[in-house]
Amino acid sequence: MDQTNKADGMMLTLLAHARVAAEAGEVPVAAAVTKSNGKVIAIAENRMKRDGNALHHAEMLVIFEALRVRQTSRLEDCDLWVTLEPCTMCAGAIAHARLRRLYFGAFDVKAGAVESGVRFFDQPSCYHRPEIYGGLSAAAAADLLRAFFRDRR
Amino acid sequence: MDQTNKADGMMLTLLAHARVAAEAGEVPVAAAVTKSNGKVIAIAENRMKRDGNALHHAEMLVIFEALRVRQTSRLEDCDLWVTLEPCTMCAGAIAHARLRRLYFGAFDVKAGAVESGVRFFDQPSCYHRPEIYGGLSAAAAADLLRAFFRDRR
Repeated sequence: MDQTNKADGMMLTLLAHARVAAEAGEVPVAAAVTKSNGKVIAIAENRMKRDGNALHHAEMLVIFEALRVRQTSRLEDCDLWVTLEPCTMCAGAIAHARLRRLYFGAFDVKAGAVESGVRFFDQPSCYHRPEIYGGLSAAAAADLLRAFFRDRR
Repeated sequence: MDQTNKADGMMLTLLAHARVAAEAGEVPVAAAVTKSNGKVIAIAENRMKRDGNALHHAEMLVIFEALRVRQTSRLEDCDLWVTLEPCTMCAGAIAHARLRRLYFGAFDVKAGAVESGVRFFDQPSCYHRPEIYGGLSAAAAADLLRAFFRDRR
């Protein structure tokens, strides 16, 4: 119960960040890296548009920031939270960083790489599989993305 | 013929960079981004060990550097060269950056994601497929990797 409340709280925080990203014209996705005790090390939003960099997905930025903050080359004792199922690039980065757990919100049947697409963590070419908890606050996360793309049409 | 010579020359240059990386204890891989006319925009080696960052694959570094140099968010008119078949993370990054062509050296049957593993560019979840030329100077690139891992045992 306490764990569930913590997870809900983190996803609410990230959805607020994702909304800020949407207001800046970014696909609304936000991510965090936490220590195993739940302490937040880094939070980031998508910044592809603002930074003019197609690789600046929230997950990549938050992993880079957590590595910088912790001065470590990997994040074995850390968890990654993100409002949308990670893509292929980000799933690969999560494996390279050896993150302990992956918590994500909405499923991404088009470009996701965890439960959809290449299902990277289930493949023999994946050297590290985090514990995976998908679909957290999935309806709210998906609504935010739908509203963003509807408004842009 | 001229094209073949150019490709051989680029791979020789990258293998020299990869040897420098090996001397620094890095898995010997190097990459470049070139303009469509062949002009080199950026060259990078693996720096995971030196930078203490598991995401600092040569391909990621060279894409980030090319985006920075060109001040563009994508690299549609550019080609990526790398001495080893890209992994899942790097294949995803190549698709996001919309690189025109991918030239690579040795095949990586364990962790590769182009001709091996998730074969990302052949999947429906991949939005952009570069033209792919694999196996360039493959024997020399593979020898360098084999020697590196042999020396470390």
